[in-house]
Order: sequence, then C-alpha cells, then structure tokens
Amino acid sequence: MTHTKISDSAVRRLSIYLRLLHDLSDQGAVLVSSRELAERAGATSAQVRKDLSLFGSFGKRGRGYSVAELAATLEEILGLRRHWRVALVGVGKIGTALLGYQDLSRRGFEVVAAFDTATGKVGGRQFGVRISPLAELKTIVRERGVEIGIIATPPEAAQNVAQRLAEAGVTAILNFAPVKLDVPEEVSLKTMDVAMELEGLSFQLAAGQRDEQTTGNGTGSGAG
Amino acid sequence: MTHTKISDSAVRRLSIYLRLLHDLSDQGAVLVSSRELAERAGATSAQVRKDLSLFGSFGKRGRGYSVAELAATLEEILGLRRHWRVALVGVGKIGTALLGYQDLSRRGFEVVAAFDTATGKVGGRQFGVRISPLAELKTIVRERGVEIGIIATPPEAAQNVAQRLAEAGVTAILNFAPVKLDVPEEVSLKTMDVAMELEGLSFQLAAGQRDEQTTGNGTGSGAG
Repeated sequence: MTHTKISDSAVRRLSIYLRLLHDLSDQGAVLVSSRELAERAGATSAQVRKDLSLFGSFGKRGRGYSVAELAATLEEILGLRRHWRVALVGVGKIGTALLGYQDLSRRGFEVVAAFDTATGKVGGRQFGVRISPLAELKTIVRERGVEIGIIATPPEAAQNVAQRLAEAGVTAILNFAPVKLDVPEEVSLKTMDVAMELEGLSFQLAAGQRDEQTTGNGTGSGAG
Repeated sequence: MTHTKISDSAVRRLSIYLRLLHDLSDQGAVLVSSRELAERAGATSAQVRKDLSLFGSFGKRGRGYSVAELAATLEEILGLRRHWRVALVGVGKIGTALLGYQDLSRRGFEVVAAFDTATGKVGGRQFGVRISPLAELKTIVRERGVEIGIIATPPEAAQNVAQRLAEAGVTAILNFAPVKLDVPEEVSLKTMDVAMELEGLSFQLAAGQRDEQTTGNGTGSGAG
C-alpha cells in the first residue's frame, strides 16, 4: 500500500493520537473509544475513525481500541519503531536548543553529527555531540548513515547546506532557515519558519479587523 | 470581504510571494510576471494568479505585476503595514533565540514583554527586553496592549499560560511547547512542534521504504 499520498494534516493528527495513547497508557488505560480519543485530540470521532481506517481496521465495534495495539501500529506507520540518524547543521541558538531537547532522542531521533563553520565552535561538544567543520559534512554524513538533516544556519548558507546534505544521501530535511530551499524531488522537506507562522497569525488578526469594519461592529481604530 | 476562510497554505504562499517581491525590489526590479514569481516560489503561474485573484485583480495582462504595488497589497492583506505587540512567555533556549531574532521586529512583530518564573531570570534583560515575573502577565499584557503571545515554556506549563494570555485579551498565540492547547474559539493558535515535524518526515521515509519493498525495487536494506 502506498502511504505517501496521505495529507500532512492527517499525519499530524496521527502524531497527536499517538501522544494521547502514550498518556493514556501511562495512566493505566487499556481501551479507548474513538469518541474519547477525538475529545482529547480536539477532533470528531468520525475524523478519528476515518484517519485510522486509512491504515486498516482497528478496534472492535462498541469496545473501542486497544491502547497498546493502536499505539504500536501508529508507531509503525509513523516510522517510530526504529531510530533515525540525524545531522544538525548550524549550532547557533536554535541548533543548541535542538541538541538540548531530550525529547527528540526519546522519540527516536538521534543527533549523531553536528556541523558549524565558526572556529570557536568546531571541535567542541554540545550536549555530548561533537561539532565538526562543515567541510567534513559529506564524509561524516555518509559514514554515519545519516537519514535526516536539520538546517539551522543563517538563511544565506541554507541552500548550499541543503545541496550538500542531498549529495551525501540525506533524503529528509527539516529547515529552520527563513528561506525557500530547492531540493531534489526524492528529498522530503519541511520548513519551520517563525516569521511565516507569525504572518499567518497577523493575517487572521487583520482579517478579523477588516471583517469587523465591514460588518460595522468595529470602530475602525487600531489599524493605523 | 471575509478573508478568514482562506487556507493556511494559501496564506503561506502569500508570505513567500511577499519575500520574493522584497528581494526583487532590492534588486531594482519594477515589474514581475506571474511566471517569474511562480518559478521563484516553486509554484505554477496558474497557482500564483489564483492566489492573488482571491484578493482582487492585480497586474495587467502581458505586462505583469508592479513589484511595489503587489508588495504593498500583500503587506496589507497579511496585516504587515502596522506593528503587532508580542509577549514572550518562557525565556529558555528557544525563547532567547526568538528575542535575538532581529528579523521579527523588521517584519513588524515587536516583543514588548517577556515572562519567566525562574528567579535568576526575572528582573534581567535579554536583547533589551525586560523579563517580568509570570504573576504580572495579565497586568502587563493589558497595559501594553499585547495582541500576540508566544509560548516557549515547558509543556506542563503551556496550557495555564495560554489561558492567562487569553484572559488578558490576547487573540493570537504561537505555541512552541510540544502539547495540544485548548484555547477559546476567538483565539487563533499555531503550534510549532519540532518532534511532530520530524515525525512527518519519518512517516515519509518509512512510507518510501514500505513502497520500495512492495514494488520490489528496493533491496530492503537500511531499514534495520
């Protein structure tokens, strides 16, 4: 079965269900209904059943899902029943925050290499990870079988780094640099861009104010 | 006109077009065709024309868009022709990285208050912003007319902070804590969750490997 066509938002919901199942398991729950899962996830039970049915049929009518089985299946679907080897490029503030984020390795994302260009950083260690010079990226990424690259460089360096990662065989990139990257078709790319998320929020705030003005509920102030 | 129904991905593309227009303007360009904008944005020209037509008609057939006019209109649509007052809650590594991210204020997002609970941090300053105790959140947020809250606290504190922000009148929240927040309907919420983005990538990597195995093109190696 081809799973690559599932929408990003459906995959996000699977991640959310999985976290809820882990919480339920910690609390000693054995079964969970689609309604309970839906309530905790802020979705409808129809949505939950639809999302899960994409991957086969789970649960018994009227009894609910087995928390342990459903969690195991979701981990399998999300590729989390194994460890992924991650390389971090750019050990500035965001990069350092990521290295210190222990939840990543608990979730199966092991940072096995970190790179920077600053002479004060190269050769040192952050949270147990040695920082190597960018010039060694290709060799080290290949040697260590890195599968996922995280780019946390200044924007002007990001495209070049993406290209080096792809050439070294990395097929998934998480990009924190506020710039649009060109990557080969076989590379999966996700970008986390704070300014863009804030612009999404300001769009909604501004749209709300425009709507208020249009419907005459607003005083028209504040938009200056 | 109600703009609130536009999809998140369309709004993201508007942000991307706007950045490209600023780049073009810096390079001295006066006009740009939908094809050129599409190529730079990694979209089709039909997509560009459709996105822009949502907000009225721009450009003259065969001549292209005026770079300056289109940029000004997109800034207006995205709510960027004014400054938004932002409060940051949680001045750890991610919070500090955000305070140091000068691009935010250039784009119109001014951090006017920061909060933490750690006695070592409260009373100090980071990048010119004074760190206040969390207990003063409501008073300060109201006094300074904060519109957007950024939550960069540990996950267990995030829901309580979201509630305080909403009660203080904040109507847009950007959440970095890896937890699902409940917010009142009138509050716009965006979550930036590194683990979830990585899970989206591992889903794609795992799906690719499953597909390879199914179609027999792969050697089945590497999946451990």
